[in-house]
Amino acid sequence: MPRPDAETIICTVDVVLLTLRQDQLHVVLLKRDREPFRNALALPGGYVHIDTDQSASDAAARVLLEKTGIVSPYLEQLASFTGPGRDPRGWSVSIAYYALVPESILPAQDEGIHVVPVNRLPSLPFDHKSIVEHALDRVRSKSLYSSLPVYLCGESFTLPQLQAVYESVLGEPINKVSFRRKVDELGMLEAIEGEMQSGRANRPAQLYRLRREFRHSLSMLDRGLNSRMS
Amino acid sequence: MPRPDAETIICTVDVVLLTLRQDQLHVVLLKRDREPFRNALALPGGYVHIDTDQSASDAAARVLLEKTGIVSPYLEQLASFTGPGRDPRGWSVSIAYYALVPESILPAQDEGIHVVPVNRLPSLPFDHKSIVEHALDRVRSKSLYSSLPVYLCGESFTLPQLQAVYESVLGEPINKVSFRRKVDELGMLEAIEGEMQSGRANRPAQLYRLRREFRHSLSMLDRGLNSRMS
Repeated sequence: MPRPDAETIICTVDVVLLTLRQDQLHVVLLKRDREPFRNALALPGGYVHIDTDQSASDAAARVLLEKTGIVSPYLEQLASFTGPGRDPRGWSVSIAYYALVPESILPAQDEGIHVVPVNRLPSLPFDHKSIVEHALDRVRSKSLYSSLPVYLCGESFTLPQLQAVYESVLGEPINKVSFRRKVDELGMLEAIEGEMQSGRANRPAQLYRLRREFRHSLSMLDRGLNSRMS
Repeated sequence: MPRPDAETIICTVDVVLLTLRQDQLHVVLLKRDREPFRNALALPGGYVHIDTDQSASDAAARVLLEKTGIVSPYLEQLASFTGPGRDPRGWSVSIAYYALVPESILPAQDEGIHVVPVNRLPSLPFDHKSIVEHALDRVRSKSLYSSLPVYLCGESFTLPQLQAVYESVLGEPINKVSFRRKVDELGMLEAIEGEMQSGRANRPAQLYRLRREFRHSLSMLDRGLNSRMS
């Protein structure tokens, strides 16, 4: 049967792994250990392995685990980046994914993981810069109406800490009352009974965690007409 | 250099082409002229041609033109659908796109184009049903805050006609005052001077068209914090 060209397209996955460090979004880059662009910093990526991967999403999770040791509870397809010019090896398709993790689960820098602020990216091979920018757009717009930024938090956090995380992602301050109302609407959190954060000047703050049903999928605000068009 | 498996992945594009007929969203299906699934109705699709296509988006536009004769002013990547089981020929990647066009530009049904209501889809080969459902979700959520549904209109339309188009896409009535305010915010329309729609019982209505800068790209509502979180 005819399969023109199918055999000459390179099919890879790339992962934009984001974290917060010092209140700034950072992206994880790895030094490439082979050509092309050997020794350049680049997104974690690799070929789809048809013998073992049941989907591109499987491939992305496998690549992330193999290259960084990380299993991200949330890994979403971003978009596919394609064409004859993006990879010197030939016409290529990269199916890009993004993930958000707390800084605490990253391995140490000296294990080859480079954690770079997204607003001071070095020059990157392939079209990785464009992939990162695309991911940042997606994360910022999605954070406006979902629980997405919670994946940047550790297991437990106070509401002021969570608000600071949202503000870091969005790059601007948020009104506290509105934020609390939206968090209630999202219904994503549960108070951890008896757990308070203390040791600060002000009174102890309640600690929260993500409810079980949202640990691998987002809570979304109602995007119905009532919220946008009326 | 190692390119494990790369040569055995099938790389195609599929297009979800949507239109409005009798106030209902419809999708364009074609009868497949070859195996697998010869004679089944399916989304317009085909292989990426690395000799001529500069991107998957190019491939989607080419396939759409070759198979339906249509050039859509708006064609956006939806997502990639992947895995060993979706295509009997082997491990495959379909990069799916969606487009919205006015019914008036569709060729006649007897030219092999089948225009099917999205809520009465026949059984479809591959994972095309899931691709269509994914496209509908995207179109509906994007229509809440953008000019997207305007691509379903002809060149000129009245505001009540445009509101009816939004309502058909969203599947629910919209408050007229809110709708007019959102349309103003989107800033996507210009009145066609001297053009009024008459012949109705009520007074003649102003005709509008899409402003030039939005004919190939969306106008988006401000999704900043002011609109969502404060």
